[in-house]
Amino acid sequence: MTTPPPSPKPRRGPGRPRADEAEQGPGAQERIRVAARAEFAARGYDKTSVRGIAKAAGVDPALVHHYFGSKDELFAAAIELSMEPALFVPAILGAGPDGIGERLARYFLGIWENPVSRAPLLAVMRSALTHEAAAKVLRGLILRRVLERVAADLNVPEPTFRAELAASHMIGIAMLRYVVQVEPLASADPEEIVALVAPTLQRYLTEE
Amino acid sequence: MTTPPPSPKPRRGPGRPRADEAEQGPGAQERIRVAARAEFAARGYDKTSVRGIAKAAGVDPALVHHYFGSKDELFAAAIELSMEPALFVPAILGAGPDGIGERLARYFLGIWENPVSRAPLLAVMRSALTHEAAAKVLRGLILRRVLERVAADLNVPEPTFRAELAASHMIGIAMLRYVVQVEPLASADPEEIVALVAPTLQRYLTEE
Repeated sequence: MTTPPPSPKPRRGPGRPRADEAEQGPGAQERIRVAARAEFAARGYDKTSVRGIAKAAGVDPALVHHYFGSKDELFAAAIELSMEPALFVPAILGAGPDGIGERLARYFLGIWENPVSRAPLLAVMRSALTHEAAAKVLRGLILRRVLERVAADLNVPEPTFRAELAASHMIGIAMLRYVVQVEPLASADPEEIVALVAPTLQRYLTEE
Repeated sequence: MTTPPPSPKPRRGPGRPRADEAEQGPGAQERIRVAARAEFAARGYDKTSVRGIAKAAGVDPALVHHYFGSKDELFAAAIELSMEPALFVPAILGAGPDGIGERLARYFLGIWENPVSRAPLLAVMRSALTHEAAAKVLRGLILRRVLERVAADLNVPEPTFRAELAASHMIGIAMLRYVVQVEPLASADPEEIVALVAPTLQRYLTEE
């Protein structure tokens, strides 16, 4: 899935587009998704509204409801947009079990090192910790869309459980390095972290 | 450090104790610490006040200020009260490097399995994710009081960094198991988690 620019079409005049303009179709849907990610990242789960997302996407709130139904579905779409590139790149899972721990650790740290992808991921963690509705969305999404797809490629007993252990380590590193910012972890060279963590992920994902 | 009961002395009459009663001394200080932990756990960092902690401890707010100075110092005291038993029991660190990973994993999960200690730890994680002031307190406290004391007993290069990697794994497991509650991790037998995680902690804490 690629990320389109927030406003793909030039407008005829200045100001907000009107609801009766031609806004429908996959372009608008993608714009809403990108706007949802930005709004949840900037404001958190609680303060983000369907109306605010509609405004940021330049569409009528009714169109947002039409495509996504509810705030929780928008939150799920925003998470998916943030996480899919992090976990489904064929370079990580498709290249077979050799070195999978190292590839996964390096890619995950890369996502967090980039401020553009870090902000929505932080918003997701914040929301999951503070709002049961957000945690529920995340739970369904993590379980069904991310971990089970990772697990399907693994050749170990209880592959989903193993994938969750690997994910838990990376999430905890993100929490201590980027949120609490405890030293020396916060300033460590990413490659130093990869070197120590890769064997752990490799063991969880490949050894019986 | 042992945890005293919230109200150690029987009162002469019903209702809140008056500020001019004999409330000073280490008994009151401990009572304030325990009340702070309960208040931060129940209300979170933002909604907890010095006044509310004083009321819960049955002391005058001036006495809380006298002992702890500010809300941030109370937060630090509440964290310390929650974390010290989890990390400083001599049974974990004092018994030498053999089996240290297994003892640490089992003890940490035990703390989270117990709802009494889980609530304040959850509150700490929530606060650190949502309030920079709380993250700053946690950063200072984790670094100075917890990780450096753990690291002092380790015989590896960069012991604080190693201790942080071990801590990050346990924090991430807590996040996925107890907060997001993703299955099968959320319902797994703690001993199954210990069996897989112990070798990871053992490697971080003992292998060069």
